Amino acid sequence: MYIRDPLFGNIKLGDLEGSIIECSDFQRLRYIRQLGFAFLVYPGAVYSRFEHSLGTFHVTRDLAANVSEEDNEELALAGLLHDLGHGPFSHSSDPLIAEFLGTNHELAGMEKVRRGEIGDIIRGNGLSVEKLTGYLRGESLGGIVGGVLGSDRIDYLMRDALHIGVAYGVIDYNRIKGKLTLYNGRPAIYASGMQGAESLLISRYFMHMSVYFHHAGDIATEMYRKAARIALQNGAFDPKELLEMTDDEVIIKISSEKEAGKLLHKVFRRKLFKRVYYGGARPGIGERELEDAMASAGIPQNEYIINTQKSKEDHEEGLSVVSKDGSYMGRLEELSPLVKALINISNSRNILMVAVEKDRLPAAAKAMENVLN
Amino acid sequence: MYIRDPLFGNIKLGDLEGSIIECSDFQRLRYIRQLGFAFLVYPGAVYSRFEHSLGTFHVTRDLAANVSEEDNEELALAGLLHDLGHGPFSHSSDPLIAEFLGTNHELAGMEKVRRGEIGDIIRGNGLSVEKLTGYLRGESLGGIVGGVLGSDRIDYLMRDALHIGVAYGVIDYNRIKGKLTLYNGRPAIYASGMQGAESLLISRYFMHMSVYFHHAGDIATEMYRKAARIALQNGAFDPKELLEMTDDEVIIKISSEKEAGKLLHKVFRRKLFKRVYYGGARPGIGERELEDAMASAGIPQNEYIINTQKSKEDHEEGLSVVSKDGSYMGRLEELSPLVKALINISNSRNILMVAVEKDRLPAAAKAMENVLN
Amino acid sequence: MYIRDPLFGNIKLGDLEGSIIECSDFQRLRYIRQLGFAFLVYPGAVYSRFEHSLGTFHVTRDLAANVSEEDNEELALAGLLHDLGHGPFSHSSDPLIAEFLGTNHELAGMEKVRRGEIGDIIRGNGLSVEKLTGYLRGESLGGIVGGVLGSDRIDYLMRDALHIGVAYGVIDYNRIKGKLTLYNGRPAIYASGMQGAESLLISRYFMHMSVYFHHAGDIATEMYRKAARIALQNGAFDPKELLEMTDDEVIIKISSEKEAGKLLHKVFRRKLFKRVYYGGARPGIGERELEDAMASAGIPQNEYIINTQKSKEDHEEGLSVVSKDGSYMGRLEELSPLVKALINISNSRNILMVAVEKDRLPAAAKAMENVLN
Amino acid sequence: MYIRDPLFGNIKLGDLEGSIIECSDFQRLRYIRQLGFAFLVYPGAVYSRFEHSLGTFHVTRDLAANVSEEDNEELALAGLLHDLGHGPFSHSSDPLIAEFLGTNHELAGMEKVRRGEIGDIIRGNGLSVEKLTGYLRGESLGGIVGGVLGSDRIDYLMRDALHIGVAYGVIDYNRIKGKLTLYNGRPAIYASGMQGAESLLISRYFMHMSVYFHHAGDIATEMYRKAARIALQNGAFDPKELLEMTDDEVIIKISSEKEAGKLLHKVFRRKLFKRVYYGGARPGIGERELEDAMASAGIPQNEYIINTQKSKEDHEEGLSVVSKDGSYMGRLEELSPLVKALINISNSRNILMVAVEKDRLPAAAKAMENVLN
Repeated sequence: MYIRDPLFGNIKLGDLEGSIIECSDFQRLRYIRQLGFAFLVYPGAVYSRFEHSLGTFHVTRDLAANVSEEDNEELALAGLLHDLGHGPFSHSSDPLIAEFLGTNHELAGMEKVRRGEIGDIIRGNGLSVEKLTGYLRGESLGGIVGGVLGSDRIDYLMRDALHIGVAYGVIDYNRIKGKLTLYNGRPAIYASGMQGAESLLISRYFMHMSVYFHHAGDIATEMYRKAARIALQNGAFDPKELLEMTDDEVIIKISSEKEAGKLLHKVFRRKLFKRVYYGGARPGIGERELEDAMASAGIPQNEYIINTQKSKEDHEEGLSVVSKDGSYMGRLEELSPLVKALINISNSRNILMVAVEKDRLPAAAKAMENVLN
Repeated sequence: MYIRDPLFGNIKLGDLEGSIIECSDFQRLRYIRQLGFAFLVYPGAVYSRFEHSLGTFHVTRDLAANVSEEDNEELALAGLLHDLGHGPFSHSSDPLIAEFLGTNHELAGMEKVRRGEIGDIIRGNGLSVEKLTGYLRGESLGGIVGGVLGSDRIDYLMRDALHIGVAYGVIDYNRIKGKLTLYNGRPAIYASGMQGAESLLISRYFMHMSVYFHHAGDIATEMYRKAARIALQNGAFDPKELLEMTDDEVIIKISSEKEAGKLLHKVFRRKLFKRVYYGGARPGIGERELEDAMASAGIPQNEYIINTQKSKEDHEEGLSVVSKDGSYMGRLEELSPLVKALINISNSRNILMVAVEKDRLPAAAKAMENVLN
Repeated sequence: MYIRDPLFGNIKLGDLEGSIIECSDFQRLRYIRQLGFAFLVYPGAVYSRFEHSLGTFHVTRDLAANVSEEDNEELALAGLLHDLGHGPFSHSSDPLIAEFLGTNHELAGMEKVRRGEIGDIIRGNGLSVEKLTGYLRGESLGGIVGGVLGSDRIDYLMRDALHIGVAYGVIDYNRIKGKLTLYNGRPAIYASGMQGAESLLISRYFMHMSVYFHHAGDIATEMYRKAARIALQNGAFDPKELLEMTDDEVIIKISSEKEAGKLLHKVFRRKLFKRVYYGGARPGIGERELEDAMASAGIPQNEYIINTQKSKEDHEEGLSVVSKDGSYMGRLEELSPLVKALINISNSRNILMVAVEKDRLPAAAKAMENVLN
Repeated sequence: MYIRDPLFGNIKLGDLEGSIIECSDFQRLRYIRQLGFAFLVYPGAVYSRFEHSLGTFHVTRDLAANVSEEDNEELALAGLLHDLGHGPFSHSSDPLIAEFLGTNHELAGMEKVRRGEIGDIIRGNGLSVEKLTGYLRGESLGGIVGGVLGSDRIDYLMRDALHIGVAYGVIDYNRIKGKLTLYNGRPAIYASGMQGAESLLISRYFMHMSVYFHHAGDIATEMYRKAARIALQNGAFDPKELLEMTDDEVIIKISSEKEAGKLLHKVFRRKLFKRVYYGGARPGIGERELEDAMASAGIPQNEYIINTQKSKEDHEEGLSVVSKDGSYMGRLEELSPLVKALINISNSRNILMVAVEKDRLPAAAKAMENVLN
């Protein structure tokens, strides 16, 4: 069975994968936009987690064939199923899932694999669900899916670039693939492939700057989150549904609550809040202080949003680099001055944005002035 | 103002176009899939009429600049607004609009331009809405948007190919653009550009064969139509709303009717009906005969669909071809044996498909055998 | 070992192929332009037979993997070595090789494989040179390289399009690959892949019309041929060298003869002859009659060229089409009305071109008028 | 008049440009490989300065239209003619031109424009050759061609990537174009376009690392230079011809000298010298010391090469960045930590390579050990 893919041509699926993608848990991904609300800035950004999941499956298999002789079906399935737990509008729902359910989409996804129809199919084919979820937790070869040079990143960077029309996502996939190897049972890269790795990290940097951190997309996302919070607080739906709903379905639920629906409607007709502050965050001025400031300016909670962009200090760029003979040379960030520079730039990012309903701008500006001085 | 486009890079909009696309009638196009239910076959086929409309605007302006010195803002806006009247899932709603409203998406679109906020903006800028709708009716230079080599076709063929990943949509846009001219005030092509025209028509032929006429997409489309008909017949919503709703909104409405909702749910979880007949249509065996056959086999109306693919005998390929000095040489189909062949192939297409709920296959097969013999 | 390729990314070579491409007979292909003199019309058309040969090797291996489980090293090498016998400027030298050596590039290539260093390497690896040349003669699986849907065509159509910048070479390679099979031990295509086959033949038609048959390229080619003939007739070099020289080397040899060198110099500074006749060929007016006419008009042989474009009536489009279960359905041209139309168009092509040094145009026009009436 | 271009589709030329490209000085560029000997590593790297010059013309006109309302024909021609002075194999001849003629390709190109047929045509059209050469010297708007974000770089980075098949040359041309402006009469960039500038400089960094500095290409280049030096020292041709010859012609001349010809022949059959040292340069160990070491090891001058890669400490990245209202914000390298990092990486590059004929490796290794310790 072949599925036509705009990035990789034909993606070949075996009978097992064919059965898995027929399951409702997987079909649901057709109706979750990969890039949340980015489509309000980039019209082409409407493609689905379904498409990305198939692509990640394809890249996983392709990378795995370069580091090992044997087929590893569980690893390929980890690529296919790594996004099963996403909520509506993908990462837009992440904080809601954390606040209301105390979990995250990775854990929720593994749970779905284990407990649902998909897990039954996998076990019915004599494969190990535990091995698969181990990969999703990043154990052993898991980095081939979720690591620095993993199939997840490779697929979404290239696919975002294709559908959106930005140049930045073009990475040297051929070189990465050809130079990937294992070191201590984990993905590593030959020194001669360091440029491939650099190209991926550069691409990721540019995509963050121009797409993932775009202020208008972020405003829309925060408006959605606020609408969802209001709806949830007023009991419009059970937070557990966040893990089961599609984009369409969450819109229906949120719209059933009046105030939340009004706010969400603005998002979809692109009546977005306007920025009253966009710049460096200040120590001591947190979300609570800003909410108080808005309240004292008479701005109701559904007429402003607060957004912060702060890099996680993950040290994942610590990919091992090995020489031609397989001996350890160092971590990527130690050996590549370019990667080092990117990590520094990324770690020093700490942006605060406050945006309000257009006619609240004067009041909000005054309030911001007070709180910042 | 620039909007990033995956096909053409940056699309430049002036202030006027910027105001128009902010209107709700235009924003609605964000939520109408360009290719209806084709996404169930081609995962990338989820892009919107919004994106296509911007692209058509861009191509219109580009083509117009090649045939005339003066700016023609009404013509460019005709490109931008030519799809304003589409119902949910684009062409999937066409028969519903005809049956229940006695109109079509072209007429409905012109009405929207005339009566709505968009018309006010156009008139407020000293432009003529009548001139614009004249173009949409195909008068004068209107063929630059809707003609054989028009911006509408050029954009959708290339854009479908890009997002879906089929090779066929790659047409020689540069040559078409460079060789377009006017003859008797209408778009025509220089003889030296005939290959460009041939490339477009070939591309259209291939896209019909592989995408627009794909049996699974057609089954899903007919299932949607049947669900909508049931919901409309039971008063679940006012047919006039067909011209105002998005994909999401029609789903909500149809789902509010039990039987219709059940049928539609099958579409979205990809539990599609299976073909019991797919082949040449037979004279004397029309929709009524087939419905009777299904009824007598005990198959309820929401468990089968009937679909016919019959080319319209339009002679639109009658584009004028002119020599270097501008004199008339003949119509494209007379001068190009390849175009002639394509028209013959297209006109002789007459396919009938009947598909049923999986467990109805044996009964349906028997019924079909009876009706065909 | 990987070689970077603009069409396919990285092409992987084994040790055996690595040794073969190091041989002088193969390195020579670096200096033979794939498209002869087309670069005078399309600046990008300067790429080499070396690049195309690597690409054909890659596609051969890719196609072969889809029709058979076992590796077939001889078949892959047939792809790599199928062009070894080309003379300078590729097909531009074909008539010279026929006239002066009584052979052709296919036979010459097989001879090179058999007798040279390359043959020794192949035999030294325990492989059969006879099996390889059998494939080159079209026996057994040879059609995977040289057939209707063979790797040779697939590679050059796509590669020409890439480097030249024409849209026409974009074929549905994925579908062809996925739908190729064997019937009676020969390449055949499943009915569901007929569109892929059609796309390739359409692409070939367009490339012929716009690139391979471009009048300016044809004039340059005939000027080269005439210059080479003059040089050969005057003993400037041994015709056997045609099979050993590169583009550069034949230029040096031709330039050593004064009259021939003068003619060739015009080609390279793009002082091309101008058309005095370009249209349908006439029965009874052959090359001899035209040469007499030019002579009687006082035009020396190095100031005119005659060129005819006549399709070979090969019935190679007779590819077998088979159903899903492998049973024979018919030949491609019987089942596809589009392919049938293309063959008719192609078979009816019969163009005559006469071109002369610019200042000979009036005399030549008069002479042509006499001979045609 | 249109010329088909693989990167930009159709490039439109006016009558003036049409006449200029017909001149021998311009046609000569057809026979100079843009990337010198890189084709020995990347088979697709055979495209010509002719193609690049047309592309640079196209981009120049495109960029200029974004910063100024008026046509500037001299600026566009500066783009077309900026490479007229290149010697055979482009930059491979640069040191020869410096050593033997005391000039460089930029100055030689301006001289050609001034003195030749091209200058006559330009003046004959009422245009100023002085204005044009002023742009080539970098005066006034000259940076639109030769600057940090100039048309020269934009074209070659994208074109190299296309023909070679590396991913790195994909830059955000649309953003650069849209965000280019003037500050104090010189090209500058809006702050909102800094990412576009970063993308170009990153692309250039990657192309240097993977293509322009590839060790095998560098070895071939140094072998060519040594062969040319031997031929020139032995009077095989007049160094002035370096500015008039094509790739083919210099091969003929060098081959006429026995020792030089033998060396050059190795290049073209890819019998390249092998590295005996490749690493950081050492203070105090210059070319003379290395030559002495090779001599004392009994290695003749035509059996080794020495190559150094040292960044020029140009501060050209000092492009002005301006705010939305046109006021000065700083230089690019001050405002972009990424550009700053790239400059540091580039400035610290200081690589020495010594390569020798294969069977000289043991002797050379010993000699290198002595000189380095």
